[in-house]
Amino acid sequence: MGEFELIERYFKRRPRQAAVGIGDDCAVWTPLSGHQMVFSADMLVEGRHFLSTVNPRALGHKALAVNLSDLAACGATPRAFLLSLALPQVDEAWLSGFSEGLLALADAHGCELIGGDTTQGPLNLAITVIGEVPFGQSILRSGAQPGDDLYVSGHLGDARLALEAFRGLSLPQAVFDLARSRMETPSPRIALGQALRGVASAMADISDGLLGDLGHILKASGVGAEIELTGLRDVMLTAKLWACPPDVHRTCVLSGGDDYELVFTAPAHLRDRVQAVAHASDTLVTHIGRITQADTLVLRDASGQVVPCDLSSYDHFASP
Amino acid sequence: MGEFELIERYFKRRPRQAAVGIGDDCAVWTPLSGHQMVFSADMLVEGRHFLSTVNPRALGHKALAVNLSDLAACGATPRAFLLSLALPQVDEAWLSGFSEGLLALADAHGCELIGGDTTQGPLNLAITVIGEVPFGQSILRSGAQPGDDLYVSGHLGDARLALEAFRGLSLPQAVFDLARSRMETPSPRIALGQALRGVASAMADISDGLLGDLGHILKASGVGAEIELTGLRDVMLTAKLWACPPDVHRTCVLSGGDDYELVFTAPAHLRDRVQAVAHASDTLVTHIGRITQADTLVLRDASGQVVPCDLSSYDHFASP
Repeated sequence: MGEFELIERYFKRRPRQAAVGIGDDCAVWTPLSGHQMVFSADMLVEGRHFLSTVNPRALGHKALAVNLSDLAACGATPRAFLLSLALPQVDEAWLSGFSEGLLALADAHGCELIGGDTTQGPLNLAITVIGEVPFGQSILRSGAQPGDDLYVSGHLGDARLALEAFRGLSLPQAVFDLARSRMETPSPRIALGQALRGVASAMADISDGLLGDLGHILKASGVGAEIELTGLRDVMLTAKLWACPPDVHRTCVLSGGDDYELVFTAPAHLRDRVQAVAHASDTLVTHIGRITQADTLVLRDASGQVVPCDLSSYDHFASP
Repeated sequence: MGEFELIERYFKRRPRQAAVGIGDDCAVWTPLSGHQMVFSADMLVEGRHFLSTVNPRALGHKALAVNLSDLAACGATPRAFLLSLALPQVDEAWLSGFSEGLLALADAHGCELIGGDTTQGPLNLAITVIGEVPFGQSILRSGAQPGDDLYVSGHLGDARLALEAFRGLSLPQAVFDLARSRMETPSPRIALGQALRGVASAMADISDGLLGDLGHILKASGVGAEIELTGLRDVMLTAKLWACPPDVHRTCVLSGGDDYELVFTAPAHLRDRVQAVAHASDTLVTHIGRITQADTLVLRDASGQVVPCDLSSYDHFASP
């Protein structure tokens, strides 16, 4: 099968919102009046971001989910995406599963595939997502203020637990299955992200671990934070199913990575509003601490004692 | 060096037109009123699109140039781009050269790097370019009409000649040097593309060879074409420097690939306008034939005889 037939068979569909979709030199898009366009790109590499054994349908889902998560973190509405795909060979069963997983998530969020590229090469999935946000309402990393509350969405640490299992950690089967589904098919928090426009003062998605991604907010906003570890006690979904060792729990929750949840701040007087928004978007939101004037990130245990913090976020090029 | 330091050192600059550039979850862009946004993506893989020995500065230039060429083909004005980069390791000399070549071409076209991703993996460069075009004025592949003139910009076949030299074809040194520079540092025809708005009826860029890319126009427009081969006699730049064998000339010019020139059609009554536009944008434009009602592509020699045409365009997954 040739390049153009491959695109035609697995990826090309009639344009819906795009003025011009797949099949010309460029896609053409008419912006919504009164809105800004929002862009993000993420690249997934075999052996680095996923294993060669991953179910292709799950991989299609995840490749788009990690990109949608960035749109969620800005409060944007997903509109469209471009997919550049390097494939070692044409494997129709793989392409069929991959495109199904990809397009099912795209349809669920009204996010249209409008272009991209396919080529032969080591397996690599590069997506650029395009969103829209009412003018001036994107939620940036730089807006946190001392005194703001600190929150996370959903569940943290389960994806990292699955990774540890692939590395040899022994887990009960039900724990492994749940952790693996969290790793392979994360849910981008699009509804929550949009609902937090005008509520959250700063936001980021958690892809490299809570401490690392919170660190981006602190650096961009010029502030510090205190996290109450008790607030994070129930945040790991799989921890409800087994006696997760405390050190594993802490590593997974604080610097797990691959969570694709949101970490955000909001003024303390909007606490009720945050929970109303969480309820309306059917997403768990947990209060985990507050923003401080210091330029440090402090962890406190149940008794208020400072806990040493030596966990760093995942860095693709960091020395071991 | 870590991922974030790498981005900071080699790629991050102060936003110019972007409302938010590199460093948040998303970039934010305010669209020009009365315009549409135009998007294209191209992925370059080592060993497939370039050799491991390529000069990194030239590679940085080319990675963006092939993307800008798609914007040119729609008559769009380049505005911004996102770069996703998989690197086997952090090589500072390579990154320095690559980013210089990339950003020099970006600056030459006012096209701002606003986001992307970096990860470890087999060398892969995935770019999404963003352009703008006045509402309804993008030049599509589908607008060619029977009777329209057929044109190409610049020079064709030289990049393919360089590829043949890398594969073993013996060339005079001056010929090889010129061909190689055409292969490694193509010039996207941005000025010409924009100037052809309201003049060209259909346009595509020539990345996979003249016949293949013209074929996209014919298919999208539901028309055929006749090419007069005499019109292509002087279109190969290196042919001026040596006695290029006729079969090599024909292969390189008709199905060479990697040209990043434009093939376009325009109504016959706009012939003077086309040449004026070519002159104003300082780009050679050659009349090479005309659009027909038939659904075939016919090549004619100097005596008007039909020449058999068995050359197909480059297809990344075609069987050999």
